[in-house]
Amino acid sequence: MPIRSLAPLIAAAALLLLPPAQAQPAAFSAADLATSRALAARAAQSPLAYELVDSLVTEVGPRPAGSAGDARAVAWALAKLKALGFANVRAEPVPLRVWKRGEVQASLTAPYLQTLVVAALGNSVATPKPGLQAEIAYYADFDALKADTSERARGRIVFIDQKTDRTADARGYGRAVATRINGTSEAARRGALAVAIRSIGTDRDRFAHTGSTRYADGVAPIPALAVSVPDADLIARLQRYGQPLTMQLSLQAETDVPALTHNVIAEIPGSDRAAEVVLIGAHLDSWDLGPGALDDGAGVGIVTAAAKLILDSGAKPRRTVRVVLFGNEENGFDGAVAYADKYRDQVHQFVAESDLGAGLVYRFQSRVRPEALPAVRAIAEQLAPLNIVLGSNEGTPGPDAGVLMRRRSWPALELSQDGSEYFDVHHTANDTLDKVDPAKLRQNVAAWAVMTWLAAQSELSFGPMPLPRSAAP
Amino acid sequence: MPIRSLAPLIAAAALLLLPPAQAQPAAFSAADLATSRALAARAAQSPLAYELVDSLVTEVGPRPAGSAGDARAVAWALAKLKALGFANVRAEPVPLRVWKRGEVQASLTAPYLQTLVVAALGNSVATPKPGLQAEIAYYADFDALKADTSERARGRIVFIDQKTDRTADARGYGRAVATRINGTSEAARRGALAVAIRSIGTDRDRFAHTGSTRYADGVAPIPALAVSVPDADLIARLQRYGQPLTMQLSLQAETDVPALTHNVIAEIPGSDRAAEVVLIGAHLDSWDLGPGALDDGAGVGIVTAAAKLILDSGAKPRRTVRVVLFGNEENGFDGAVAYADKYRDQVHQFVAESDLGAGLVYRFQSRVRPEALPAVRAIAEQLAPLNIVLGSNEGTPGPDAGVLMRRRSWPALELSQDGSEYFDVHHTANDTLDKVDPAKLRQNVAAWAVMTWLAAQSELSFGPMPLPRSAAP
Repeated sequence: MPIRSLAPLIAAAALLLLPPAQAQPAAFSAADLATSRALAARAAQSPLAYELVDSLVTEVGPRPAGSAGDARAVAWALAKLKALGFANVRAEPVPLRVWKRGEVQASLTAPYLQTLVVAALGNSVATPKPGLQAEIAYYADFDALKADTSERARGRIVFIDQKTDRTADARGYGRAVATRINGTSEAARRGALAVAIRSIGTDRDRFAHTGSTRYADGVAPIPALAVSVPDADLIARLQRYGQPLTMQLSLQAETDVPALTHNVIAEIPGSDRAAEVVLIGAHLDSWDLGPGALDDGAGVGIVTAAAKLILDSGAKPRRTVRVVLFGNEENGFDGAVAYADKYRDQVHQFVAESDLGAGLVYRFQSRVRPEALPAVRAIAEQLAPLNIVLGSNEGTPGPDAGVLMRRRSWPALELSQDGSEYFDVHHTANDTLDKVDPAKLRQNVAAWAVMTWLAAQSELSFGPMPLPRSAAP
Repeated sequence: MPIRSLAPLIAAAALLLLPPAQAQPAAFSAADLATSRALAARAAQSPLAYELVDSLVTEVGPRPAGSAGDARAVAWALAKLKALGFANVRAEPVPLRVWKRGEVQASLTAPYLQTLVVAALGNSVATPKPGLQAEIAYYADFDALKADTSERARGRIVFIDQKTDRTADARGYGRAVATRINGTSEAARRGALAVAIRSIGTDRDRFAHTGSTRYADGVAPIPALAVSVPDADLIARLQRYGQPLTMQLSLQAETDVPALTHNVIAEIPGSDRAAEVVLIGAHLDSWDLGPGALDDGAGVGIVTAAAKLILDSGAKPRRTVRVVLFGNEENGFDGAVAYADKYRDQVHQFVAESDLGAGLVYRFQSRVRPEALPAVRAIAEQLAPLNIVLGSNEGTPGPDAGVLMRRRSWPALELSQDGSEYFDVHHTANDTLDKVDPAKLRQNVAAWAVMTWLAAQSELSFGPMPLPRSAAP
């Protein structure tokens, strides 16, 4: 490895080793810091984020990409962002092909007749019209399926009883969700007729959690569905009876339907560095089963309200503050991909997205070039009064922003939220406004306003990022 | 009022005034008390009640009276009670006419299109096949509707936004449930096309709570449904917009369908007072939306396990212990009415029913003739180690047992449960096994075993009751 490629690492290490007093020079002017404090103070009083979530779920509701609800959401967002006074408010079309849910019903037919609460997974193919019926091949978790080299799954409906751990962050979900995404292909490879999974969720309510699944190349697609947690418990109990367990299943769906969604964008134009962008995003679409108050109405409310506070502060940001409400985060990232293409040549100071509900922010992380870390530390100082600690420089900025980061190597910031209750209602009909705590939302807005404002003002450029090692010469 | 009819009241007052030491003579033999303590000790170790609930919901599931599930529940109960070794196990037929749920769907159509989560109320008539659509007449609570002397409800769909308070006992439910039972007739009298109510429930989950409604004599029936709490919140928010709110509604149902259910009965024959009965009951039926783990699988498990402990104690009860699993508690009390007719001439030492879920018992109450109160106090002494306090002599013995008490003036006992979480899932699809805490169930079993055993042994007859004042000569 040539010395040149080590230089950023050495610089980073050096910065990390500096005592705090030296590591945090006057990264921001007194005026910028005063504005930051004023933003935090005003956020603590602002009802705007909650009002936005309320308005979105009350007036629009479910808004899967390409649906009539999605079109209403786009119109809603354009009207709101214009009314709030942002500049350059626009909807950028994103053509895409969508999956559409149809009717689903499933029941156990032996050893006892029991109706199950289920939901098709996104992208699932349909069953034949009359449905299908087969014995269940039970797997206690995803590893058990992956380890199975027998013929047990062939001609059967595979049931994967993978549990989701409740964790303070999204790690429990992160471990379990591979079952939903990849379990279908693992079952199909083994000759299964269909796959059913225990819902990826931390609740014990009778809601099925939807979410997308994926067919690996070369795999013949099979229908895939999630079973509510209490119904998964029922299957688990019955399989201990040691008798054949059979399931009847009918699932209708359309795949690959041409449709149109939009990224909705609003800006606060910058002053001396207006060509550079600080991007704070959320996704406008939701799954179809519920109104998406937490996923991602909360994110829409948080980043919009944070930008509005900056707009109303009277202080003009140096870089352009851009709010991006992405289209189709839930089942394809088409909006993020389109954005990454369209704005490929624009300098992005950072990208970040709010998409873990309405829990308190507890940590601030970055993924910036090492030379920019003093600015990150100075931002962290301003976030500390909000009970936010500084994490590492290996942050992840959210799903759509993650697409941008990976495709464009743009720097990224992360405000990590407490997600311990988020996966109780995630991707269910139960993701409703009552799950949003207005006080917690206000703390989020404060954090996003402070972070966004200061990063927009920084003398330091957060990128370009060092080349990843694998790409190094 | 002649002196004779005052005598019982005077006796009761005298007993209540006696100091505890004198009020509790040696009501029970040392052997009976030893058995009582042994029963409590064994109950603390017994998994039986939970196993029974598990078995019922796993192998049968929903069991509305007269349905195929109900028939399976009756067969299940007969088999279980026989296998447990009880005597005189039998299913007593109860012919009845039932209400059958069909498809339902409801949505708001203005000012915004929103799909609602709803359930028809039991006994509701159907809408015309194509459904109906009308403006909503919003009432903040049931009192507001009752007070309305205007024409506002005429030609509209009445929405009653009555909240259910969470209380330690069932009082919050008791206050709210009148809306479900009588709101339909109040709306119909005012010319409404249909009535929708906020679900009678303490949760904030997206489940509609069903339950029976009633058409008063002379009222032209209109369709009636419950809306989930988050959807009721949505309606409440939208009506504040001040624009006309319209609902589209289609509800199918069949009423007055001839059917058959059964009371399932098992006994431990008494010794010297075998002709007298101590009746501990629960109801075997459930609503159709869920498996009825709490309502009333828990009660079935508790009273059956309590009787089984007595059966296995080696001590033969003096009076006959009778377990009665009533048919159709949920929508008509046909089982209780049939029992009251069939056994009208049998002496019942007491009737009691477990039907408030699986919360801890915190109180013991009675409704016995005053001369029997020393026995009640002596039983309370044995319940005290289970953290159960003695309440009044105005107890209520549960819904079916309440029918018996009112129709036959049989004495009654009550073990009051903590119901603070019960109405979160009551009458919903979400009433599943995971809501049952096995440890709390064991405390219930101990209390029921102690109470049943001692009341069966008592030298004192708990009845006959004093004539009610209105019936006094």
